[in-house]
Amino acid sequence: MFRPEIKVVDCTIRDGGLSNDSNFTLETVRNVYAAACASGVDYVELGYRNSKEMFSPEQFGAWRFCDEEHLRQATDGIDAGSTKISIMQDAHKAVAEDVLPKEQSVVSMIRVATYVKDVDKAIALANNATDKGYEATINIMAISQEGGPSLDQAVQQIEAETKVQAVYVVDSYGALYSEEVHYLIERFQMFLKTKEIGFHGHNNQLLAFANTIEAIIKGANYVDGTLYGLGRAAGNCPLELLMGFLKNPKFNVVPLLDVIGKTIMPLREDIDWGYHIPYMLTGIRNLHPRDAMEWMERKNSKDKHDYVAFYDKITEDPE
Amino acid sequence: MFRPEIKVVDCTIRDGGLSNDSNFTLETVRNVYAAACASGVDYVELGYRNSKEMFSPEQFGAWRFCDEEHLRQATDGIDAGSTKISIMQDAHKAVAEDVLPKEQSVVSMIRVATYVKDVDKAIALANNATDKGYEATINIMAISQEGGPSLDQAVQQIEAETKVQAVYVVDSYGALYSEEVHYLIERFQMFLKTKEIGFHGHNNQLLAFANTIEAIIKGANYVDGTLYGLGRAAGNCPLELLMGFLKNPKFNVVPLLDVIGKTIMPLREDIDWGYHIPYMLTGIRNLHPRDAMEWMERKNSKDKHDYVAFYDKITEDPE
Repeated sequence: MFRPEIKVVDCTIRDGGLSNDSNFTLETVRNVYAAACASGVDYVELGYRNSKEMFSPEQFGAWRFCDEEHLRQATDGIDAGSTKISIMQDAHKAVAEDVLPKEQSVVSMIRVATYVKDVDKAIALANNATDKGYEATINIMAISQEGGPSLDQAVQQIEAETKVQAVYVVDSYGALYSEEVHYLIERFQMFLKTKEIGFHGHNNQLLAFANTIEAIIKGANYVDGTLYGLGRAAGNCPLELLMGFLKNPKFNVVPLLDVIGKTIMPLREDIDWGYHIPYMLTGIRNLHPRDAMEWMERKNSKDKHDYVAFYDKITEDPE
Repeated sequence: MFRPEIKVVDCTIRDGGLSNDSNFTLETVRNVYAAACASGVDYVELGYRNSKEMFSPEQFGAWRFCDEEHLRQATDGIDAGSTKISIMQDAHKAVAEDVLPKEQSVVSMIRVATYVKDVDKAIALANNATDKGYEATINIMAISQEGGPSLDQAVQQIEAETKVQAVYVVDSYGALYSEEVHYLIERFQMFLKTKEIGFHGHNNQLLAFANTIEAIIKGANYVDGTLYGLGRAAGNCPLELLMGFLKNPKFNVVPLLDVIGKTIMPLREDIDWGYHIPYMLTGIRNLHPRDAMEWMERKNSKDKHDYVAFYDKITEDPE
């Protein structure tokens, strides 16, 4: 599968930061950035630019804020090739003033993540980004719990009111099956006449890569991956698999294999992302993974593997 | 997705036995059998009935041979419900004489695994099974390396010369993408007028579950899963995911969650099945996983994570 329009975004540090409060060392971020550039991915997303009023800099690492100074430390002296830098802003947890004019920044693209209910905030932040000279996207999270007219209206509003280059289907809960991916992509295509469609998957049901392929087949041209799937909870579509599938000669998987072995595998001592039964169960039931993440924190507890207890917990009738 | 014709086969002990020479304890096999029966799967495959001339009983455990005596020890006293027992014979490593008449056996179904080149041996073993009163299937392995007229002829021959109830597409190398699954299922449908189609996936590219769904959508009615994906190398389609997708009210996922936590998770101390870069690379390159399995045995070696060295090893030009 090789379609030159397809843009690949590595978001290892950004999505992976949801599993360690963005506390990656500078060395880790430099290694990931260098490998992403050497592999030829189109964008590498180095974190969030969220508000220090809403996230404590004592608890959260530098990659939750992506100050320009830190971004320069992470990228100085590394040959970027054709790879551009992306950062993400959460519509409800970020402010426009934290974004400098493009000329003063190493960033090329700002992606605004939003729930449908916050779409007006997302549009304001996206317009702030494009007005200041950046490329931008809007990424609609938790889409497996959205639908009907409110989602349609949000997509229509983004089409009419912004200059973003893509609007993403984000399967935050890892709940979508391929037929639902098809449905959502076709739904977006009805309303988006001047913008591309993107897809970002989660691996709760081991479908992140498969659903990304399905989105590509249906026409999505912006797709996300992370090294060895590193990301919140069950993680994401593995970037190395995506590159193997795309077969674009501009991509080189070897630098990714190298950085996975040297930099990503050691992270597994502290972060246990991937396929686990609690994440699978929240995915199947179309729930936020927070209860599963809390359960998985029971590292030394005897009942960590009492999956029936976890199942009972998330399926009990609400009071 | 709920289609009453769909038959689910749990092959945890059989395929998992390829990662530990079938050396499961009797307790493990009893626990898996009990959970499979309680969950309502249609068949539970407790191992191979392969030849003791070709596999040493000193090296391989009881579940490589599935003597009737061992099968009775594994199942006695457990309420089978509607779940039947299956065993597998390898076309080139098993003999007809090892199969007793059905009346003397606890087994209901014999599945014959074969490469295309051994289809005549497979047909002989399948006819031996049906003549002796069993249900039977023929499972065509390594199908990502087969194609063209030899595969077509094998499928036609099975249709004409056997009474098996299903013929399986077996993605032994975990190499298939969804479009190739579609192609193969449609190809089989051209030739199979009296038999069902089955699908058995491997997870080298994290596509075993997704491809199983695709096979079901295209009409496959026999599908395989294993508990938590336990199986050779990257493992298989996780049975618990398959049950979540199928939503047949006769299935109950809770006994599976219970046995995964209590019986399957402890096996991970000795067997490291799942998504790993060496398995991913053999899958992408459509190769047998044996080189990757050998690499993964370097448990305490510093270069176990030198994935570039492994990549170079499997991509070097043949001499």
